Amino acid sequence: MSDENRRMWSELGLNLRAHDQLLSVLSNAYQDIYLSQQNRPESTSYFDDVMSEIHGQRIQELMREKQQGRKIVGSYCVFVPEEIVQAANATLVGLCSGADFAEEEVEKYLPRNTCSLIKSSLGFKLGRVCPFLEGSDMIVGENTCDGKKKFYETLSDLVPNMYVMDLPQMKSQQGRQMLRSEFYRFLEAMQDLTGFQVDATALRNGIRMVNEKRKAIHRLQSLRTADPAPISGLDALLANQIFLYEDPRRFAREVHKICDELEQRIERGEGVFPANAPRILVSGCPMAVPNWKVPHIVESAGAVIVGEESCVGERGNRNTTEEEGESLEELMEAVVDRYFGIDCAIFTPNPDRTEHILDMAKRYRADGVIHYGLQFCQPYLMESFGVEKSLEDKGIPVLRLETDYSQEDSGQLQTRVEAFLELLK
Amino acid sequence: MSDENRRMWSELGLNLRAHDQLLSVLSNAYQDIYLSQQNRPESTSYFDDVMSEIHGQRIQELMREKQQGRKIVGSYCVFVPEEIVQAANATLVGLCSGADFAEEEVEKYLPRNTCSLIKSSLGFKLGRVCPFLEGSDMIVGENTCDGKKKFYETLSDLVPNMYVMDLPQMKSQQGRQMLRSEFYRFLEAMQDLTGFQVDATALRNGIRMVNEKRKAIHRLQSLRTADPAPISGLDALLANQIFLYEDPRRFAREVHKICDELEQRIERGEGVFPANAPRILVSGCPMAVPNWKVPHIVESAGAVIVGEESCVGERGNRNTTEEEGESLEELMEAVVDRYFGIDCAIFTPNPDRTEHILDMAKRYRADGVIHYGLQFCQPYLMESFGVEKSLEDKGIPVLRLETDYSQEDSGQLQTRVEAFLELLK
Repeated sequence: MSDENRRMWSELGLNLRAHDQLLSVLSNAYQDIYLSQQNRPESTSYFDDVMSEIHGQRIQELMREKQQGRKIVGSYCVFVPEEIVQAANATLVGLCSGADFAEEEVEKYLPRNTCSLIKSSLGFKLGRVCPFLEGSDMIVGENTCDGKKKFYETLSDLVPNMYVMDLPQMKSQQGRQMLRSEFYRFLEAMQDLTGFQVDATALRNGIRMVNEKRKAIHRLQSLRTADPAPISGLDALLANQIFLYEDPRRFAREVHKICDELEQRIERGEGVFPANAPRILVSGCPMAVPNWKVPHIVESAGAVIVGEESCVGERGNRNTTEEEGESLEELMEAVVDRYFGIDCAIFTPNPDRTEHILDMAKRYRADGVIHYGLQFCQPYLMESFGVEKSLEDKGIPVLRLETDYSQEDSGQLQTRVEAFLELLK
Repeated sequence: MSDENRRMWSELGLNLRAHDQLLSVLSNAYQDIYLSQQNRPESTSYFDDVMSEIHGQRIQELMREKQQGRKIVGSYCVFVPEEIVQAANATLVGLCSGADFAEEEVEKYLPRNTCSLIKSSLGFKLGRVCPFLEGSDMIVGENTCDGKKKFYETLSDLVPNMYVMDLPQMKSQQGRQMLRSEFYRFLEAMQDLTGFQVDATALRNGIRMVNEKRKAIHRLQSLRTADPAPISGLDALLANQIFLYEDPRRFAREVHKICDELEQRIERGEGVFPANAPRILVSGCPMAVPNWKVPHIVESAGAVIVGEESCVGERGNRNTTEEEGESLEELMEAVVDRYFGIDCAIFTPNPDRTEHILDMAKRYRADGVIHYGLQFCQPYLMESFGVEKSLEDKGIPVLRLETDYSQEDSGQLQTRVEAFLELLK
């Protein structure tokens, strides 16, 4: 298997030596952070399998799909409508980020003061260590924040297959029209890519498949309202991360198995942490694999994370897409409606997000909220001031963290998190 | 006069003590930077008059306009169409920025890592020291960069009269439609504000008035192609800064007078700097009064700035608006066309800006380009990498500077600028 993987990585043009180093770091981090957890549900062994084969088995599967004529579409954002990708007979995968890579090289292309997520995305490309990216037939960027918008200009000089989706900045009628028009343009682009003509049946099947994996993770999330929480925030985050590139059918099946086990745990009153552990909601910027720094610090300090208000979390996966439309047009409207509801901080104003955070804090019975901001991520950092105020007005304690992918501030973060948890007692 | 001003500032709700301090700092900076210049054209005494009465006579004029029923509209960006404001019987003024103010207070609302321009805009509000802002009947924000977009959310909680204009991010057909639709919405809002119904004649008059002041500054700019340059970059920058809030008719008249003098100077071969002084084009972020730091360093080092590729410069004022349309609709299309041509870095991609910089470098016979980036201004900092590459491909030396409004890095900037100028010899 390993030889087979190496041949594949080599064919994809990866830098094998750098990639070996990356996998080794990843494996060690997983060992230290995930496998050292106590009281994990047995069925989370699924995560261990997925993670051990993150650039192996999953990429082999995608390459087989390609051999059978299916196309692979890579994306950096939850605004890219997976329903349309699936309907056009293609597979959507989230592209690599979450760890610093080729940093010196990256700073030849991007300002030092760029958020880690964007630097990392470019680092994985420049370092040639992301098989998802190298194997993609199309890379879809989207005009969300300034950083990503301008990064895609850089990336488009480095890859032959960049497609950029424009996005609105306001939840106006005009904004919805723009998203609709862009989703139709994307449908055309997908049809051109795959040669497959999408009809109502194809789109409905795409919607159903994506909804199924959403329903699985919704079930997982709802079980975290229990006290004690039956699964760690780290494992739940991993489910949210895997959600973005795993085979959707297998993902739904395996997550339901985990949920079955969690229900039994809840019945037995069994949790991963003691019942009195402080319950934390994490809100803010997305965390891609292997960005587990803050959740690891929080849960190592004895708290349990019960929800993620994040693109890699409920912001990204809440709300299914209505399946009932009969025509392609009706179903497309349903897709537009679903994505137009995403309360990303790129929208101005963005009151829905604050409402959602308040709702989640209540639903998950959170004792406090940690706002996770990536340094230099203007939309989320700027929004965090208003979020903090709204939460404090409701008596919910908030800790605003601003960090990056380095480990340099771990000690300082740990001190601040511990002090915050003391406050919650 | 001073008593009259103080009464007015007090009525506008300014913090008089803080405002006194501000004016004193401003006056000293003007003395040190402007009045110490050698060989200034005599007619630049107009600038001295305007600057000495920046919060005095000009505000008195605006207050008189208000008493006569005219409305004052404040703006932070060259995307706000002055033609429409004028047509609706209102006056557009650029709002205060350009200096750090109330910094501690500002950081209670905005992340530390926000660009100086935005922090300064908020600081002038929180410190209550901007009579333009306090006297405005409407404040128009616009969705340009993430920083400003989210800042307007903060500002809208602090002022009773905020209006936000949405803007496109791509120069697509859809983008133009959005701008058009937003300009019509703005026309409605202006009519609601003033109670004045705009017809073709009114809009044509508005277009003509704005064109006249643009033509005056175009004439000034074209005279700077002469060698030796007949006017300093500092004075030309000031013309560009005053352009944004001075009475448009007086501005045009006085700038033409300056141009008359400059033509005589050119005939006599007379310049502000020796003929062999290195000629520098400055490109990048806008510089609001009193942000004269980098031009002062550049010209104190013996170079002359011959052009500004900036919102406060050619990016903002180049291109007049077509006046020939007969109907309101035709004239509105002309306004949309003119503003849709602005090559701001918020657009993706934005190749026109690079073309414009190359064109300016050639037209003004620049020996080198200094790219001026405000720290944390993602759009311009990210674009600066591509700009640098394009210029270097044409053999034009580039110095990329990243700075803020503080004076802490002045020594370091000076060293870097001097080293760059050595290179040009």
